[in-house]
Amino acid sequence: MVLVNGLQTDWLNVHDRGLAYGDGVFRTLRVSRGRALCWQRHYQKLQTDCQALGLSCPSYSVLCQEIDQITAANPESVLKIIITRGAGPRGYRVTADVQSTRIIMVNSLPEYPPSYHEQGVSLRVCDLRLSLQPRLAGIKHLNRLENVMARQEWDDASIAEGLLLDSEGYVIGGTMTNLFMLKGNELWTPDLTRCGVAGVQRKRVLEQAAASSIPCPERNILLEHLLQADEIFLTNSVIGVWQVREIGQNRWNKGVFTPKVRQWLNEPCD
Amino acid sequence: MVLVNGLQTDWLNVHDRGLAYGDGVFRTLRVSRGRALCWQRHYQKLQTDCQALGLSCPSYSVLCQEIDQITAANPESVLKIIITRGAGPRGYRVTADVQSTRIIMVNSLPEYPPSYHEQGVSLRVCDLRLSLQPRLAGIKHLNRLENVMARQEWDDASIAEGLLLDSEGYVIGGTMTNLFMLKGNELWTPDLTRCGVAGVQRKRVLEQAAASSIPCPERNILLEHLLQADEIFLTNSVIGVWQVREIGQNRWNKGVFTPKVRQWLNEPCD
Repeated sequence: MVLVNGLQTDWLNVHDRGLAYGDGVFRTLRVSRGRALCWQRHYQKLQTDCQALGLSCPSYSVLCQEIDQITAANPESVLKIIITRGAGPRGYRVTADVQSTRIIMVNSLPEYPPSYHEQGVSLRVCDLRLSLQPRLAGIKHLNRLENVMARQEWDDASIAEGLLLDSEGYVIGGTMTNLFMLKGNELWTPDLTRCGVAGVQRKRVLEQAAASSIPCPERNILLEHLLQADEIFLTNSVIGVWQVREIGQNRWNKGVFTPKVRQWLNEPCD
Repeated sequence: MVLVNGLQTDWLNVHDRGLAYGDGVFRTLRVSRGRALCWQRHYQKLQTDCQALGLSCPSYSVLCQEIDQITAANPESVLKIIITRGAGPRGYRVTADVQSTRIIMVNSLPEYPPSYHEQGVSLRVCDLRLSLQPRLAGIKHLNRLENVMARQEWDDASIAEGLLLDSEGYVIGGTMTNLFMLKGNELWTPDLTRCGVAGVQRKRVLEQAAASSIPCPERNILLEHLLQADEIFLTNSVIGVWQVREIGQNRWNKGVFTPKVRQWLNEPCD
């Protein structure tokens, strides 16, 4: 089921700038018992991302109403919200009369092996290096070809996720996840001011770490530093948290920190 | 008028990966007297770009047929061809069964002031710096947020185009054009192996320069080198060629080389 500007349809105006230029942003979140989890946080992030591109963000109440409509029929699902600049004439220039398009859709929950939660996951280090663009860093915009190309690097079902480094060799995260590493009493997470997407669950982990007085710097992390971690885990709003069990030849035992993070993320979240 | 996979419609499947991720490529070309100019060259570039993304490119004959259908009714227009990965399930992974989508549309010719051809154009140097991504450089893909953001930097109608530098300060081109500079007996054009779009008219100029024994290196060009040029011009398949008259405080008189390039580009082109 899909709502485009409030109307149930599977069709989008072919002149939409979301298609032409990837001129828009999106959110992917979990629906459980008919509730869109962390929706207020996701809305905040949507607003921030829209603002960064100079897009007008639909109102909270309009989106709430449409999400209610769609989640009622799909109480266990993945919700995707796309906001584009809207349909407009050809050319990069944004005309004054363009009105943003909102697309709300649900998808079935992905069927990951239970072992991903229970034993952790294997990563491959992607060959593709992310480019550095401070103006777009952190934003979940529709220009995601780098992620698509990185994901094409493997077809081995035993590899759950690809690890992305930037063009200077710093670890940024997974193709669809944010990354944290435990190092002694500190939690480190990649600085995302030059590339990457700063997700809602990443922010929650940062906040919970702060509340628990665990230092959690956002910093440059080289692959060699990552491989020396005591524990590594990945987060996003669909999977929650996965511990990393394996990166190439490097292995980690089941840790005690990831379950704590899972508890954090399982807390009620508006 | 728009054809999506051969059918006349203004609507695209909302699950198309062209929207979701900018997972596709496009071409923009001039239709004159009902003929798509340089169409064979554009098709070649479409093939190259599709291949670079691992997209299946529609056959030449299918596209020819659809273009004929659409240009017959719009003999003086701008033709845009978009090829996307097609509609598919959520997620960056490309599934085996996904089939590429082809979109053929026409737009009216843009109404640029005649002075752009006759006297040349003013450029602004954009603040946005292009990111470096060798894996996507040269390809006219649908991830064009950088161009959109750069084009938002000015709204002054006397500025025809924005000049884009990369993150290291090298000149790459305009937001929608390729750039050449004349320096003594040499023509220089930016190296586009790390970012930028390598257009069809740029290639024609390179070929014509070679045929005329004019050295035309593709090289790193700093802004300070550009400003010392004897003559600067911009090319694309819609405008043909525009001389640059002004970049900030720097001005150039009408040159003799740009008219020669205009002759080159006005030659018949299949």
